[in-house]
Amino acid sequence: MKKLNIGILGYGFMGRAHSNAYHKVNHFFDLKYQPILKAVCARNADNAKAFAEKWGYESVVTDWRKLIERDDVDLIDICTPNNTHAEIALAAARAGKMILCEKPLALNAEEAEKMVAAVEKAKVANMVWYNYRRCPAVVLAKQLIDEGKLGRIFHYRAKFLQDWTINPDLPQGGAALWRLDVKAAGSGVTGDLLAHCIDTAMWLNGSIDSVSAMTETFIKERKHQLTGKVEKVGIDDACAFLARFSNGSLATFESTRYARGHKALYTFEINGEHASIFWDLHDLHRLQYFDHRDEGRVRGWRSIHVSDGDQPYMKNWWVPGLQIGYEHSFVHQVADFLAGLADGKPARPDFKDGLATDYVTDAVLKSARMGQWEKVKKVK
Amino acid sequence: MKKLNIGILGYGFMGRAHSNAYHKVNHFFDLKYQPILKAVCARNADNAKAFAEKWGYESVVTDWRKLIERDDVDLIDICTPNNTHAEIALAAARAGKMILCEKPLALNAEEAEKMVAAVEKAKVANMVWYNYRRCPAVVLAKQLIDEGKLGRIFHYRAKFLQDWTINPDLPQGGAALWRLDVKAAGSGVTGDLLAHCIDTAMWLNGSIDSVSAMTETFIKERKHQLTGKVEKVGIDDACAFLARFSNGSLATFESTRYARGHKALYTFEINGEHASIFWDLHDLHRLQYFDHRDEGRVRGWRSIHVSDGDQPYMKNWWVPGLQIGYEHSFVHQVADFLAGLADGKPARPDFKDGLATDYVTDAVLKSARMGQWEKVKKVK
Amino acid sequence: MKKLNIGILGYGFMGRAHSNAYHKVNHFFDLKYQPILKAVCARNADNAKAFAEKWGYESVVTDWRKLIERDDVDLIDICTPNNTHAEIALAAARAGKMILCEKPLALNAEEAEKMVAAVEKAKVANMVWYNYRRCPAVVLAKQLIDEGKLGRIFHYRAKFLQDWTINPDLPQGGAALWRLDVKAAGSGVTGDLLAHCIDTAMWLNGSIDSVSAMTETFIKERKHQLTGKVEKVGIDDACAFLARFSNGSLATFESTRYARGHKALYTFEINGEHASIFWDLHDLHRLQYFDHRDEGRVRGWRSIHVSDGDQPYMKNWWVPGLQIGYEHSFVHQVADFLAGLADGKPARPDFKDGLATDYVTDAVLKSARMGQWEKVKKVK
Amino acid sequence: MKKLNIGILGYGFMGRAHSNAYHKVNHFFDLKYQPILKAVCARNADNAKAFAEKWGYESVVTDWRKLIERDDVDLIDICTPNNTHAEIALAAARAGKMILCEKPLALNAEEAEKMVAAVEKAKVANMVWYNYRRCPAVVLAKQLIDEGKLGRIFHYRAKFLQDWTINPDLPQGGAALWRLDVKAAGSGVTGDLLAHCIDTAMWLNGSIDSVSAMTETFIKERKHQLTGKVEKVGIDDACAFLARFSNGSLATFESTRYARGHKALYTFEINGEHASIFWDLHDLHRLQYFDHRDEGRVRGWRSIHVSDGDQPYMKNWWVPGLQIGYEHSFVHQVADFLAGLADGKPARPDFKDGLATDYVTDAVLKSARMGQWEKVKKVK
Repeated sequence: MKKLNIGILGYGFMGRAHSNAYHKVNHFFDLKYQPILKAVCARNADNAKAFAEKWGYESVVTDWRKLIERDDVDLIDICTPNNTHAEIALAAARAGKMILCEKPLALNAEEAEKMVAAVEKAKVANMVWYNYRRCPAVVLAKQLIDEGKLGRIFHYRAKFLQDWTINPDLPQGGAALWRLDVKAAGSGVTGDLLAHCIDTAMWLNGSIDSVSAMTETFIKERKHQLTGKVEKVGIDDACAFLARFSNGSLATFESTRYARGHKALYTFEINGEHASIFWDLHDLHRLQYFDHRDEGRVRGWRSIHVSDGDQPYMKNWWVPGLQIGYEHSFVHQVADFLAGLADGKPARPDFKDGLATDYVTDAVLKSARMGQWEKVKKVK
Repeated sequence: MKKLNIGILGYGFMGRAHSNAYHKVNHFFDLKYQPILKAVCARNADNAKAFAEKWGYESVVTDWRKLIERDDVDLIDICTPNNTHAEIALAAARAGKMILCEKPLALNAEEAEKMVAAVEKAKVANMVWYNYRRCPAVVLAKQLIDEGKLGRIFHYRAKFLQDWTINPDLPQGGAALWRLDVKAAGSGVTGDLLAHCIDTAMWLNGSIDSVSAMTETFIKERKHQLTGKVEKVGIDDACAFLARFSNGSLATFESTRYARGHKALYTFEINGEHASIFWDLHDLHRLQYFDHRDEGRVRGWRSIHVSDGDQPYMKNWWVPGLQIGYEHSFVHQVADFLAGLADGKPARPDFKDGLATDYVTDAVLKSARMGQWEKVKKVK
Repeated sequence: MKKLNIGILGYGFMGRAHSNAYHKVNHFFDLKYQPILKAVCARNADNAKAFAEKWGYESVVTDWRKLIERDDVDLIDICTPNNTHAEIALAAARAGKMILCEKPLALNAEEAEKMVAAVEKAKVANMVWYNYRRCPAVVLAKQLIDEGKLGRIFHYRAKFLQDWTINPDLPQGGAALWRLDVKAAGSGVTGDLLAHCIDTAMWLNGSIDSVSAMTETFIKERKHQLTGKVEKVGIDDACAFLARFSNGSLATFESTRYARGHKALYTFEINGEHASIFWDLHDLHRLQYFDHRDEGRVRGWRSIHVSDGDQPYMKNWWVPGLQIGYEHSFVHQVADFLAGLADGKPARPDFKDGLATDYVTDAVLKSARMGQWEKVKKVK
Repeated sequence: MKKLNIGILGYGFMGRAHSNAYHKVNHFFDLKYQPILKAVCARNADNAKAFAEKWGYESVVTDWRKLIERDDVDLIDICTPNNTHAEIALAAARAGKMILCEKPLALNAEEAEKMVAAVEKAKVANMVWYNYRRCPAVVLAKQLIDEGKLGRIFHYRAKFLQDWTINPDLPQGGAALWRLDVKAAGSGVTGDLLAHCIDTAMWLNGSIDSVSAMTETFIKERKHQLTGKVEKVGIDDACAFLARFSNGSLATFESTRYARGHKALYTFEINGEHASIFWDLHDLHRLQYFDHRDEGRVRGWRSIHVSDGDQPYMKNWWVPGLQIGYEHSFVHQVADFLAGLADGKPARPDFKDGLATDYVTDAVLKSARMGQWEKVKKVK
């Protein structure tokens, strides 16, 4: 088995999720590569050390440029805030490192275009962590669509609803709350949550042509963790948009952090000529499926417990009826990335796919700003 | 259209449900008979008059024997407490009246046997109001079973859970609470609720051979409405039993009025070799259906919204997606009774079916009393 | 009890639903008025006669102007296609009749304005049949909102999804299919289905300020039932729009007849600061409710079975746990109308409310046509 | 951090589940002990080596007695078939090793009594892998019960339904199918599945006094994998029993491998005076909770998504809304075992708890054999 030396940047939520995936992947998948946790990089040395100890990273680095220079690191995994992705990725590509980058790929499509150019020039393996593509139920949905089980697609609708920022006393910025700071995050729910919805949607249903969006910031000012002052909130708390796909189907997308009762309710539904599909992150191990070709009297939405060996990824886990969870989507993504390295068929979504999503989010934000429909730029 | 003159006894919950059914049946079903609300009988003349006025009964009677004597009454509908069924039915049969009797047919099988003998001797149409057989989803279940879609049956399980008697201050006896008075009701949940479960079960899955039961009375004493005194509670608050069906399948049955959160949760599930079925009175317009012959990857329990024209009774109502409710089961039962009168194929459950259920409830109560398995007597 | 003589126009789906409500209302509600089924009007005399016989209408009229002239008719109930509402209502108002009109009130707001002016001038009682307001679960939602249980509202989302026109061989126009004929219906899903969503939404959440919409006609040509020719389809098969409410909340609305698996899936969800609500016509007897003030560990969406006596309208029906259905919303609307007549507090939605909805649907259709945001006109 | 050297016996389903737990536990829990994967023992050296390589065990042993003799092994983890538990555990206790044993503890209570005596004499830490106690939703149920939120308990009902042995061509015995071989397994669903239900039930609701059971073997003969011959099937395919708890509550238990549509549907429901609880292994991250003290109009079953930091174990995982799965119950059990070692409060269920469950399963099997109620022996 070949060793693949990982250098990771960031030790937060995603740092843990990726590290867990690197640890587990060879226990459950037969692969030609094995990730080696070579180094973790973070500005705070103590925190980095504690993280390295907990997760078994061999070394600690506090300057990300040093990490990229190291000969014993093959792959740079970027888990830092959005406003750092581009600079790090450009440098890593120049250094010839493979790059796995957290989503969204960049603050905007302009940055993302440079990142795509960089990895293409450097010919380095690259991937964006849109992990929800790898939930078994979502992959099953993809299979059914690709096999033509749905027929012509009429409708797509996706939502990502949360409720964790309703409290006006919640500050913005700083370690845990950089997602509320427009400088670090670039946008609010659009880049953070809708980006997931858009990535899945284009994977399942093809490209998006045009959008009409609205955004809102319900809480206009919040204390900033770093400055200690009450500052204007720059992010979008909520965003909804209409869209037309290239295949002629209509779509609605919505995301908010102000929907009481929903913690991470990412749902999508697709209505085709023959069949429909619904998925919900709160019960990610299930797929709802309606097939009009079933006999009329006994037609109904099927609640599929995606835990059988003939369902995507599931033969690698336990036995039918025993569910996996959120973290497994990352394990699958690593497994597919490593398999792609071995067989020369790179796993997706790569940086180009990430750029395509950034084109959509840029158009969405512009549409909301201008109050008009916007065309979406396409990746060449 | 022929007139069928109805004389009803009792104006409570069931009096209303039946009267509503008589009113509606010809609006929604094409039939050769039309029920005419001829007379309502109750001891309290004022209450009877108010009821007659509200529901359009032509006359009021306070002595049930007078009702039975009337030439202008074709059919006696018995909606009075269980301990009155036998006497009234025997007299009505002697008078040559058709008889519709609320469930359970009698206080016990001994009484019920006499009632069967009486209607057979008198050759009068007879039916017991086990109305849940007529919920469209339940009839759909029956169709699927009869068509062999389930194959060999392995398991049957039924429950009827309520929570309305948990409060120890609730009195027993009297108008609204006769179901808590063992003299009026004969038993508690066994005759009231399990009787429904048993009737449906034998209709769907054939006869029951033997049972092992336990009962419990959680609140041992309650004030009696009629005497005003605290008296021992004679009914079973809860009853559960194991059963073996003649077809070799195993069953569990349970009923209680002490299950918080359940108002009238009558559910049954049937597991067959090829398929399974689940139904729930709280969502009576749905049937859950699992068919193992579906393709493996997309196999799942189907939630069937029973509201299409090709599903039982539904072409007579609205349009797909628009649900009917509890009361419609009575309308269907009247419709089937009237159709049976016209075409000479009597609707069921008739008194013999009611007796079969009483044989089971008798065995259940005896098993609980004796602490041993009991054989169930079969209707000849 | 006062008699209220009803003259109904049309004997289709709505003719049946209203007639059933007139029959039932006095059986279940204590009211000072009793509807008398005086006359049914339809161009086809045979069909009208059959309907009158089935439902107990005393007489039949084939010319609607004759119906309006009759002294023995107090109330005109308009159940004919949308393009006939205005003319009939204007004449009925001139004749001093009360008017109940099926939704949408008119082909467009221009017509609806005249209808409002006519009933105001004539000072006649008037109401529009947006019946879903009267589902008990929806009324419960209204109570909770009005009591402030949700706090500040952030989001509203509504959908009405069907799948009955996917087959391209389905013709347009004629008796049963006038909803597909733009001349008779005015629009497609916007006037037929979204109008319901908008009426409920404004009742629950106040007025709508602006909208951005898109529409689509998936099947461009269909055979016309009346002409026998293949003709261009003029209606919108699907419509989705973004909206901003006057209270600052954001909304998405969507309707289609191309969503496989959904027969009449009208759903709405409201997210407030403290609590959220969800309702679904396919299980209309339930309300989903999430209250953030519940203790954290046991917080969850509550599935409320709306069948208890302390829930709206339910003390008039059966006992807890026994559900009512679609038809009961009409019974409730009649009951409220009659109660309003008696106590001088007219039931709503009246024609002005119907006009308000038409302003929104007009703005939606214009927005879709122009590809831009539109302000919504307000009722004065 | 102290090292705890693990020697594991068996590399099947449970071998993997435990190994995964040993790997993950220190990544997610702050503990004073770290499991070290010292050795795996299996008769087939090649399979053992492959497993050791995959999971990082340092060495391989083919004779279990050798494993127990090793000084560098602190803890013996028994994942072999049921008929081997007693002999191995007795030897391990004599050697002074800590013992973790898969469930059921033994073939019967007689064996289990000896195992309890052995670990008590040797004073070694011991635990049985009834892992479902450690699903966060189940622990939450335990908390609610212990806090008195349910009040007096009236009812307990549990089921464990599967459908994987319906095919009569499935053989019995051998590596993957020893659970169908009565010699290796001791019993069928009773020891395999009902044992889980009983362990949870007694943890939540106290001891069981008496039972009345029935069992069935639907497929009477199957080919045996080892002998190659068609042999009589000795296990119970299905078992249902009534039970009375010491606290006066009534219970029904049922398990089968012949319930189409259910892969591993372990469910339990508890009905108390004030509140009820329902849990379902197919959606193990949810708890259903009904609290009668909620305001009447908005009372309903709450679907609790157990993924918040204030819910059991969940602060150690991801963020609200992101679910964990089956494997995490094992991680929790290891974490609790290690914490118990450190603080001197041994984790449960220990061997005595395992014996208590064996007393119940013995009584169940005897009741079914004798056709009568049986008293359950209590652990001293």
